Amino acid sequence: MLPWRADLAGRLDEGVIDSALLRDNPLGDPHERPVWVYLPPGYDDSDERYPSVYVIQGYTGHLTMWSNRTPFRQPFVETADQVFADGTAPPCIVVYVDAWTSYGGSQFVDSAGTGKYHSYLCDEVVPWVDERYRTIDAPESRAISGKSSGGYGAMITPMLRPDLFGALATHAGDTLYEYCYLPEFAQAVRFLRAYDGDIWRWWDDFKSRPAFTKKEDAALITALGCSAAFSPGEDGRPVLPFDSRSGAVLTEVWDKWLEWDPVRMVDRYADALRGLRAVWIDAGTADDYYLDLGSEAFRDGLARIGVPDDKVFFELFEATHAGIDYRYPLALTWLAHRLAR
Amino acid sequence: MLPWRADLAGRLDEGVIDSALLRDNPLGDPHERPVWVYLPPGYDDSDERYPSVYVIQGYTGHLTMWSNRTPFRQPFVETADQVFADGTAPPCIVVYVDAWTSYGGSQFVDSAGTGKYHSYLCDEVVPWVDERYRTIDAPESRAISGKSSGGYGAMITPMLRPDLFGALATHAGDTLYEYCYLPEFAQAVRFLRAYDGDIWRWWDDFKSRPAFTKKEDAALITALGCSAAFSPGEDGRPVLPFDSRSGAVLTEVWDKWLEWDPVRMVDRYADALRGLRAVWIDAGTADDYYLDLGSEAFRDGLARIGVPDDKVFFELFEATHAGIDYRYPLALTWLAHRLAR
Amino acid sequence: MLPWRADLAGRLDEGVIDSALLRDNPLGDPHERPVWVYLPPGYDDSDERYPSVYVIQGYTGHLTMWSNRTPFRQPFVETADQVFADGTAPPCIVVYVDAWTSYGGSQFVDSAGTGKYHSYLCDEVVPWVDERYRTIDAPESRAISGKSSGGYGAMITPMLRPDLFGALATHAGDTLYEYCYLPEFAQAVRFLRAYDGDIWRWWDDFKSRPAFTKKEDAALITALGCSAAFSPGEDGRPVLPFDSRSGAVLTEVWDKWLEWDPVRMVDRYADALRGLRAVWIDAGTADDYYLDLGSEAFRDGLARIGVPDDKVFFELFEATHAGIDYRYPLALTWLAHRLAR
Amino acid sequence: MLPWRADLAGRLDEGVIDSALLRDNPLGDPHERPVWVYLPPGYDDSDERYPSVYVIQGYTGHLTMWSNRTPFRQPFVETADQVFADGTAPPCIVVYVDAWTSYGGSQFVDSAGTGKYHSYLCDEVVPWVDERYRTIDAPESRAISGKSSGGYGAMITPMLRPDLFGALATHAGDTLYEYCYLPEFAQAVRFLRAYDGDIWRWWDDFKSRPAFTKKEDAALITALGCSAAFSPGEDGRPVLPFDSRSGAVLTEVWDKWLEWDPVRMVDRYADALRGLRAVWIDAGTADDYYLDLGSEAFRDGLARIGVPDDKVFFELFEATHAGIDYRYPLALTWLAHRLAR
Repeated sequence: MLPWRADLAGRLDEGVIDSALLRDNPLGDPHERPVWVYLPPGYDDSDERYPSVYVIQGYTGHLTMWSNRTPFRQPFVETADQVFADGTAPPCIVVYVDAWTSYGGSQFVDSAGTGKYHSYLCDEVVPWVDERYRTIDAPESRAISGKSSGGYGAMITPMLRPDLFGALATHAGDTLYEYCYLPEFAQAVRFLRAYDGDIWRWWDDFKSRPAFTKKEDAALITALGCSAAFSPGEDGRPVLPFDSRSGAVLTEVWDKWLEWDPVRMVDRYADALRGLRAVWIDAGTADDYYLDLGSEAFRDGLARIGVPDDKVFFELFEATHAGIDYRYPLALTWLAHRLAR
Repeated sequence: MLPWRADLAGRLDEGVIDSALLRDNPLGDPHERPVWVYLPPGYDDSDERYPSVYVIQGYTGHLTMWSNRTPFRQPFVETADQVFADGTAPPCIVVYVDAWTSYGGSQFVDSAGTGKYHSYLCDEVVPWVDERYRTIDAPESRAISGKSSGGYGAMITPMLRPDLFGALATHAGDTLYEYCYLPEFAQAVRFLRAYDGDIWRWWDDFKSRPAFTKKEDAALITALGCSAAFSPGEDGRPVLPFDSRSGAVLTEVWDKWLEWDPVRMVDRYADALRGLRAVWIDAGTADDYYLDLGSEAFRDGLARIGVPDDKVFFELFEATHAGIDYRYPLALTWLAHRLAR
Repeated sequence: MLPWRADLAGRLDEGVIDSALLRDNPLGDPHERPVWVYLPPGYDDSDERYPSVYVIQGYTGHLTMWSNRTPFRQPFVETADQVFADGTAPPCIVVYVDAWTSYGGSQFVDSAGTGKYHSYLCDEVVPWVDERYRTIDAPESRAISGKSSGGYGAMITPMLRPDLFGALATHAGDTLYEYCYLPEFAQAVRFLRAYDGDIWRWWDDFKSRPAFTKKEDAALITALGCSAAFSPGEDGRPVLPFDSRSGAVLTEVWDKWLEWDPVRMVDRYADALRGLRAVWIDAGTADDYYLDLGSEAFRDGLARIGVPDDKVFFELFEATHAGIDYRYPLALTWLAHRLAR
Repeated sequence: MLPWRADLAGRLDEGVIDSALLRDNPLGDPHERPVWVYLPPGYDDSDERYPSVYVIQGYTGHLTMWSNRTPFRQPFVETADQVFADGTAPPCIVVYVDAWTSYGGSQFVDSAGTGKYHSYLCDEVVPWVDERYRTIDAPESRAISGKSSGGYGAMITPMLRPDLFGALATHAGDTLYEYCYLPEFAQAVRFLRAYDGDIWRWWDDFKSRPAFTKKEDAALITALGCSAAFSPGEDGRPVLPFDSRSGAVLTEVWDKWLEWDPVRMVDRYADALRGLRAVWIDAGTADDYYLDLGSEAFRDGLARIGVPDDKVFFELFEATHAGIDYRYPLALTWLAHRLAR
């Protein structure tokens, strides 16, 4: 009954994947994971095969949040449907993947701290989809996109698995870690003063009350979760990359993080990146985590290794880190035109 | 599959009311309105009648947003269910009411600018519910609650209709207008410089693009919508209570707003307020709209007219205006214990 | 030895006035007051008489602060000298007046709370200067200017004493009180929670330690000092215009403030204002106290009562409330050209 | 005439040093430099020799700013005098040193970008003072102190010249560069968008208008001046340690900065630091540049290399980076008690 609500022209299948890889994950998070597969208009009346676009979420995101409605806007599931319905974009299958953890996210990597979320995505979700739907099972016909930590995942996954993903879109994706993470470490240290410098004391407190009722919650859960993803200890427990009282960066640990910084991965994965058909990069000029800078740096990296300009879309637009979901269908349309079919 | 997701112990009916009062409303908004009615555990197995609590939303809220999920928290529909499921609160029927408009909200008043939302709530929704569900149809068994503009509606509706509502809960409800609205007018004036001081130019722009992509959107839609609610012109068009270039308050128009300020209504509606069984008032100590001050002032007003302290719950807690939905079940529980059954 | 330091082309006399009017002022502040009189280049070699411009300061300002140096900028005493030295402005005598009090300022009014600072300025400083220096003792040759509270004083003094002052310059002068003061009251109320709502407890604390070491100091001293100026009680003690727990405006007290709001004084003093030769009004577009709005409103007021546009200079420029001292010589130059000689 | 103004019990000599080392400095800044020497009460009536404390300033500071007055507070020259006058501290000579440059500061290092300010301080100012005043010319009787960049200078100078300085006080001194500088680089990059990424275009603009009228000025002058100090090119021109469009840190350049980071210098200068008699470290818990973290890290570094705790004073107090001058006399007193006499 809302004027800005739309019925889907396509169809959304809600499935569940029983993951072998996530079974017995270190956080005891569910190994049964929801997955949504969107089929474009016409899918059911044809035998055609379609390119696929995988969509992943930002930190603390979980799949059901794609249904959230906000005032005067449509959720992505509807705006994505619309670009296919009105012919703006050639039809694609869109796959919504869940990679949530108890720390808020997985950064879409395999980690002793959280679980094998990268492998889950690549070795379980992709085959599961390809078996059940008429996708074109080829990297030139498969893309991945996301925002924030989802943009991060969209940058690294095709580097690691160019055999699977041949295109990507990153909206304000995490990169240039000295700007997106370090200032938050400084905040984290100040917040930890109330917990005697012990993040586990905060974590116990966090779990004992409604989440995000204290100003420290957001910075500390990010610190914890990214440590779990990037620098788990031998026992799988997250190791913070900074001294929890002085904030001094612990080089050995921080270097493990930096190995996962997309702008620093570019040279190592130059071949994979040069093989991509299409790369969409955007961010708000006032992004809270300076991801506009990271986006510039990632674009520079691509140019440096010889990715041709005509394969890259780059834009900084007036925005912070919030409220930029209206960019998703723009990137989806652009990708849909560039995927092989 | 989320650890913090719960199946309902009770039951949620999703209905639609075809409103005669909203038909041909000035904004052309839908007259068919969704309504959700929650029935507590045990409802279907008994003949019992139950108190009812009406729940209304903040500015720009619309009914489907009650389904929105956030990380590590449950939506109110689930936390409300839980207090009944675990016996913390005696069972009630909970009614979720929609009063959205094209300007973002109605402030739950009858207005030539938006429509008869107050009457819709009182003369259409309440009877519709009472006809279909085993409520106790008496003011001492009927409460209303909400946050922000919803808290506002929860304060004024029982003043206007003590024959219907005998209890209320306001979380950071709009009041003490000199603090909650005036500073936003100042912002609005600055934002209007880019529109040559003409809010209709902004409105045209706003409707032409994704909503809330400009920093001015939030303040300007509030100014427009509240003007529609409180100071519509003879033709129903909102009249701003301030000069759109200097911000100077236009006393005649502003006085119409002040007539609707709960703290200023207290004396006029003293009898109604003195008849209430229970009043819950809370707000965050750092509320963005200074509604902690408004809450204090409303409480003071109740004391001044002789509402006994033991009928009033008052608390300021550490928070801003955001993220305080975890307070709703606290107030619901408190009300449930105080409604006659 | 600084490249941006200049020797004066004119001459600065530092004098002291033993004020009869300030003797026994309620705060026990000094009745001997410094005054600086700047004489333009050529003064000592001629018998000419000169127009005079009185310069007053913002809240918490005291005379010696005019000597303060900042990086890469010259103090006003030097930039003022320069416009005369290089012939940009025809020569004037510039008088720097002190009206500091123990509460930080006097708002340049006569008050039972602070003392007779208005009369001191008009009936003691002006004659003292005119007796000792070759001024042109006529309103069309005498101007007054200032920033913030000094801009306020520059607006009201010619209204009250058009026989003395025939021109003015206000930089971000206090006016449109609903915007410049009310939001600070809201802050004040929150700050007072730590003092059990008692501003005198804060005042005792403030005096017992280094000033401005607590975040509450600025808002509370303004509230106290302006109350002393605008709404002293019968015993001279400041009466706050708001309830110190809820912030609710106390209409009777607040009305006393509003009587002193320049935009609200315009109609009452229309004759005086219409008699002015020159009015400079400016402010930053992002002024912290919304004095850009106040400036617009004051300009509107002058237009409404028939002050011709060619007597008024108006500009909003990109700035906050801070760092705008570079505007002073612009206004001084403009005034110098318009004063009768 | 201000109640908080004091006449000095001691005496302040204002001298000028004609520096051979600063002659022909690369920025063409003055080689004649003011120096103030404060002599404690009793100096003129005795033959005693005194310990000396050198005081240096924060970024953009120049000597005359020590005379600046603020409301309700005394300048350091007066509060310093007071601790000697009332016997709180045993008498010392206090030397106020100027090390200003056209970029705002020198960081008290020798640099091809700005000049030999470190050597000027150590090899010209110290001997100049020792020749003219009855100091005790020994490191155990000579301290250095400052705030912000002055605190930085106070940390590094005794490391470099333990033969001269045997004690120090740093108030919010620059250190832990990843927190105090990197976030400002991110800001700088954004600001440079308006200058096509070219800091020299900004610099030309900056010099053509009143300083600090644009929001970018503070971050950009710091970036320029610190580059001049830490990473001048072969031609002496500052080389920024980051890509001016993406912000990506240029490791080779940044490493030159890090060599000058006090927390990173600790191990290299362990002997010098272990030889110190007294180290005062403090900062505000909400320091704008996270220098509270840097202070913790510097203290940790001292402990790590074996500086005994009883030689170190450490405190974090509630404050930002501003308004903390009231801390200076506390440190001065503490040092005065610890210097050999």
